[in-house]
Amino acid sequence: MIIVMKPNAPQSSIDFIVKTITEKGLQTHISKGEEVTIIGVVGDKSRLSQQNLEIAPDVEKIVPVTETYKLANKKFHPEPSIIKAGNTEIGPNNLTIMAGPCAVESEAQLMKIAYAVKAAGANILRGGAYKPRTSPYAFQGLEEEGLRYMLNAKAETGLTTICEVTSLDAINAAVKYVDMIQIGARNMQNFYLLKEAGKSGLPVLLKRGFAATIDEWLNAAEYIIAEGNPNVVLCERGIRTFETATRNTLDLSAVPVMKEKTHLPIIVDPSHATGVRAYVAPLAKAAVAAGADGLMIEVHDNPAKALSDGPQSLTFEQFDTLTKELRPYAQLSGRIF
Amino acid sequence: MIIVMKPNAPQSSIDFIVKTITEKGLQTHISKGEEVTIIGVVGDKSRLSQQNLEIAPDVEKIVPVTETYKLANKKFHPEPSIIKAGNTEIGPNNLTIMAGPCAVESEAQLMKIAYAVKAAGANILRGGAYKPRTSPYAFQGLEEEGLRYMLNAKAETGLTTICEVTSLDAINAAVKYVDMIQIGARNMQNFYLLKEAGKSGLPVLLKRGFAATIDEWLNAAEYIIAEGNPNVVLCERGIRTFETATRNTLDLSAVPVMKEKTHLPIIVDPSHATGVRAYVAPLAKAAVAAGADGLMIEVHDNPAKALSDGPQSLTFEQFDTLTKELRPYAQLSGRIF
Amino acid sequence: MIIVMKPNAPQSSIDFIVKTITEKGLQTHISKGEEVTIIGVVGDKSRLSQQNLEIAPDVEKIVPVTETYKLANKKFHPEPSIIKAGNTEIGPNNLTIMAGPCAVESEAQLMKIAYAVKAAGANILRGGAYKPRTSPYAFQGLEEEGLRYMLNAKAETGLTTICEVTSLDAINAAVKYVDMIQIGARNMQNFYLLKEAGKSGLPVLLKRGFAATIDEWLNAAEYIIAEGNPNVVLCERGIRTFETATRNTLDLSAVPVMKEKTHLPIIVDPSHATGVRAYVAPLAKAAVAAGADGLMIEVHDNPAKALSDGPQSLTFEQFDTLTKELRPYAQLSGRIF
Amino acid sequence: MIIVMKPNAPQSSIDFIVKTITEKGLQTHISKGEEVTIIGVVGDKSRLSQQNLEIAPDVEKIVPVTETYKLANKKFHPEPSIIKAGNTEIGPNNLTIMAGPCAVESEAQLMKIAYAVKAAGANILRGGAYKPRTSPYAFQGLEEEGLRYMLNAKAETGLTTICEVTSLDAINAAVKYVDMIQIGARNMQNFYLLKEAGKSGLPVLLKRGFAATIDEWLNAAEYIIAEGNPNVVLCERGIRTFETATRNTLDLSAVPVMKEKTHLPIIVDPSHATGVRAYVAPLAKAAVAAGADGLMIEVHDNPAKALSDGPQSLTFEQFDTLTKELRPYAQLSGRIF
Repeated sequence: MIIVMKPNAPQSSIDFIVKTITEKGLQTHISKGEEVTIIGVVGDKSRLSQQNLEIAPDVEKIVPVTETYKLANKKFHPEPSIIKAGNTEIGPNNLTIMAGPCAVESEAQLMKIAYAVKAAGANILRGGAYKPRTSPYAFQGLEEEGLRYMLNAKAETGLTTICEVTSLDAINAAVKYVDMIQIGARNMQNFYLLKEAGKSGLPVLLKRGFAATIDEWLNAAEYIIAEGNPNVVLCERGIRTFETATRNTLDLSAVPVMKEKTHLPIIVDPSHATGVRAYVAPLAKAAVAAGADGLMIEVHDNPAKALSDGPQSLTFEQFDTLTKELRPYAQLSGRIF
Repeated sequence: MIIVMKPNAPQSSIDFIVKTITEKGLQTHISKGEEVTIIGVVGDKSRLSQQNLEIAPDVEKIVPVTETYKLANKKFHPEPSIIKAGNTEIGPNNLTIMAGPCAVESEAQLMKIAYAVKAAGANILRGGAYKPRTSPYAFQGLEEEGLRYMLNAKAETGLTTICEVTSLDAINAAVKYVDMIQIGARNMQNFYLLKEAGKSGLPVLLKRGFAATIDEWLNAAEYIIAEGNPNVVLCERGIRTFETATRNTLDLSAVPVMKEKTHLPIIVDPSHATGVRAYVAPLAKAAVAAGADGLMIEVHDNPAKALSDGPQSLTFEQFDTLTKELRPYAQLSGRIF
Repeated sequence: MIIVMKPNAPQSSIDFIVKTITEKGLQTHISKGEEVTIIGVVGDKSRLSQQNLEIAPDVEKIVPVTETYKLANKKFHPEPSIIKAGNTEIGPNNLTIMAGPCAVESEAQLMKIAYAVKAAGANILRGGAYKPRTSPYAFQGLEEEGLRYMLNAKAETGLTTICEVTSLDAINAAVKYVDMIQIGARNMQNFYLLKEAGKSGLPVLLKRGFAATIDEWLNAAEYIIAEGNPNVVLCERGIRTFETATRNTLDLSAVPVMKEKTHLPIIVDPSHATGVRAYVAPLAKAAVAAGADGLMIEVHDNPAKALSDGPQSLTFEQFDTLTKELRPYAQLSGRIF
Repeated sequence: MIIVMKPNAPQSSIDFIVKTITEKGLQTHISKGEEVTIIGVVGDKSRLSQQNLEIAPDVEKIVPVTETYKLANKKFHPEPSIIKAGNTEIGPNNLTIMAGPCAVESEAQLMKIAYAVKAAGANILRGGAYKPRTSPYAFQGLEEEGLRYMLNAKAETGLTTICEVTSLDAINAAVKYVDMIQIGARNMQNFYLLKEAGKSGLPVLLKRGFAATIDEWLNAAEYIIAEGNPNVVLCERGIRTFETATRNTLDLSAVPVMKEKTHLPIIVDPSHATGVRAYVAPLAKAAVAAGADGLMIEVHDNPAKALSDGPQSLTFEQFDTLTKELRPYAQLSGRIF
């Protein structure tokens, strides 16, 4: 932590800061410049959490130099983590493809899609049973019934399954039916839900919030891991910007940034990021080229009739073409697919 | 709803759209231009919810012309709503001041602050008992114990009380102790929580999400009202932009925009928006001048020792000066304060 | 300047940094923490401009602690500046109102508007003769002819005049006809134009770029002042965010932030920020309440027929009502108007 | 163009709109819904440019359905354009690599870099002679002297050359020395410069502004083409968002979006977008995978001593490794490299 003093801060203000810090058992190093004085702080910063030195006299600003997340931090865990979900491993050696409908609509539909995505090479079946929708009048999901269909689809196809959860009730149900749970973008800072996901014991796919910085996203992961559940996979799905040509702006830079900051795997969801079917394939390839550990892709047997997010869903044929095209990209990044 | 066809869309594609729509009992009006054909759709749009016409052949885009929120919409409820909470009325006739600590820290502290903000003119005591914090290692609030202190502070001072809720458990507790609940920015699209807040029967202060559009914010309000609870107050608290001189960018335009779009009252929180104590007073005055129905301001007996958000909290003296300065602004906007 | 080293940076890397810095005649102060080592640098940072220490071995990041702008910086010029333009003074004692049409369309129109805004209390007549338009097919302005009309309007009404410039040619013309020039948002980082504006000797209104940080904006002002022209007035006119209910998001926080960072006056343009006539009045009042030194407002004799930005222009009657309503707000902020 | 009327707009308001439009020789089609009436407008919209129907009585909003850019629009020019610059062709058949230093620093340096990037496979030598820098105190470029070095480097190596221009003077100089000019992000809406670039006759690389929408970017290209110069190449270089882990957020979605909207080639600059050397290679590969027609990459003989943007520049070795790694990606997208 570095404390930058205002220009011409009197010695008394500097002394006050130093005294406050040393009383808590930390050390200070002072650099006096012509314009400003800076005070480097060494020791356990958590002891200063109630000091609010930002508003001490003549303090200009405080610059943190260490991250608040520890368990998710690559500095303390340099090797990339491999997260197991069902019979799938997500990490540096594989390209994991999660595919399926935005929303589970019926058992027949889910089964049909499950067989199709499996045939095309997907490892994990996605399907929403609890749907967070902007309007209360839009289809909200089949809830536990949808989860049951997921279990049946897994039994039939052997695919690993993942489902979004939006409440403790949903987590409690998900534990009984699926292999992995997902925290959606809108709930990325629903800390209550993060803690419960941590306690669930299931591996968690943590989507980035629309407006979440990389740092906040990793702190959200830290909430899950701090509950004793280290099985977190990150998912970039677009951030909110001024551009309206796509639903959100897919931030592919997040892939190499995360590879520097954390040991957790990161996958990319080009379907939700763009909201447009035609952009899914080029951005899926780009994600793999950028180093992503996997993809989440929406696939539907009849996108024109999908109850949710039809316009961004691939048909079986489009998905099959995409996975074929992805294979050489997976190979170039040294991944099994 | 308007459907814009791609240039030179063949008649067969136009016919397909018209057939799909008329089969559902709606009507179409076609405008054929030189470049594009547009199809106006008249009737109950919800019948088209499963049609995904965006991906029908030769459709360029679909432009909605009516809002998805109805109960929150001024078009169907032109008179401004007055929301009652405890013995306070929030709406066009008053300037409601909610003030108090970011987090309830102890009963003695809360009581001291309650008396101080009441003396300065605040109507509602705010105090967080369930704190959503970016890092899992930061102070998370006193939970139900904090709510009990709020009840006592109300008993002593007569102030109306408000507390943020972050889970169903928190709502169930809040119902017993406080007059009004708050849904925070991070939970604005936690639709599960919105529904439960709607069922609680308590008036709800709905903060705008960091990255929420006006339209999404009103749809979130719609979730609460759709559960039979019309007592929603909106709170602008800054949106996330590229600018880092303030924590968020306070969007005061939201005040006149909301006055056009909804009958719900809107208040402004300059403390969280800026994160900087020195900017609270000028922006509080600006909010009142822009037409806000109230303010939420953080006040602490000793900001330098606050467990949460100290740097943005006003001292008693600063708050007292602010309320004095606000009175003529309230008068100019025809509000009692 | 503070250099933060990567965790466990070897001594050799630290030594390299220290050697590089001390060779240039600056001093270092080292704080060794458990996780990281930080190196405070004291002395003339410009000597390090070619060192790129960010990419020296084991450097994690470099944190600047002093601003790059000096002449615009309040630290070195604590008293607020008063900028003279024509017979007007812009600064802490007055509320300056710049009003007029987006584009000068004809002499008769300009004269009519000039008399009307003067009668309502405006000090400065604005009118665009060089119009930056998104599409090349939109009206681009009357150029020098428009400036001549401005000169005549000044002669008739005695109003101070301001006109946007978009090229050196425009500046050379403006010098002959108007009292003050404006650099528009799209040219805020057109450094060539900033330098020429600095050389022109005319006072300059510098609008904030759509995506410019406060820091970049002040550096743009520095370009003008560094040419020997200290007469710069800042103008907040909205930044680009995800919100589409208004054309841009008016960042009123910029007013108190600028009051802390610079001695230059700051005015606010609610017309361009919102793009919607109905929002101009509430945000104009809010700007004054937030401490702005003035306003820029678009006024047109017949907004429905304006060649540019009609939908955001006030009629004479609306402008007259607004200035009447603004007077008590000016008084509350201790300004003459 | 579609005009959406306010709910319950009286017939007289609808009649007024229809009359205004038909008087200008356009046609209207009316769709009367229960809530709103929409009026489709067919004919030459430019005749309505002075009508400002947005503020006619009872108009809620106007929705444009055709783009304002025509020459850059794929609808009227479906085949992808191939732009010739020097002896290079930029378009769908090749992967064009522009590489070189951020700023030309000396002739010796430029020559060394030119040979190195040529050896690694670059087609075009980039090098800034007119540098737009945030601070007026940073190195501003060698100007015409730098251009002369570019000419010599071209003579020696046979590489095509490109240089940014920031003024008419710079364009006039560039015409004498280089093969292609670049309009930088900060000047993307410097319409004066765009027109002059159009008149220059040289092919133009048009970088996207930090805060420019796709639509504005294409309108900026239209300014150049409208001057009779169809040789425009687009360059995505990151947009400004709230995320600070990278300098800007590279918007790779812009690549497939542009492929749908325009016939102009699009290249990607991962160096300026991220500002971080380590992220250049993964994002360069991602750009090619997304369908980009080329890349612009900063390369320096000694990044640690670069006068501008050293931290994002690749060394010769890093660039050589990158081009080797890029070859199979070029092949996968069917491009010669």
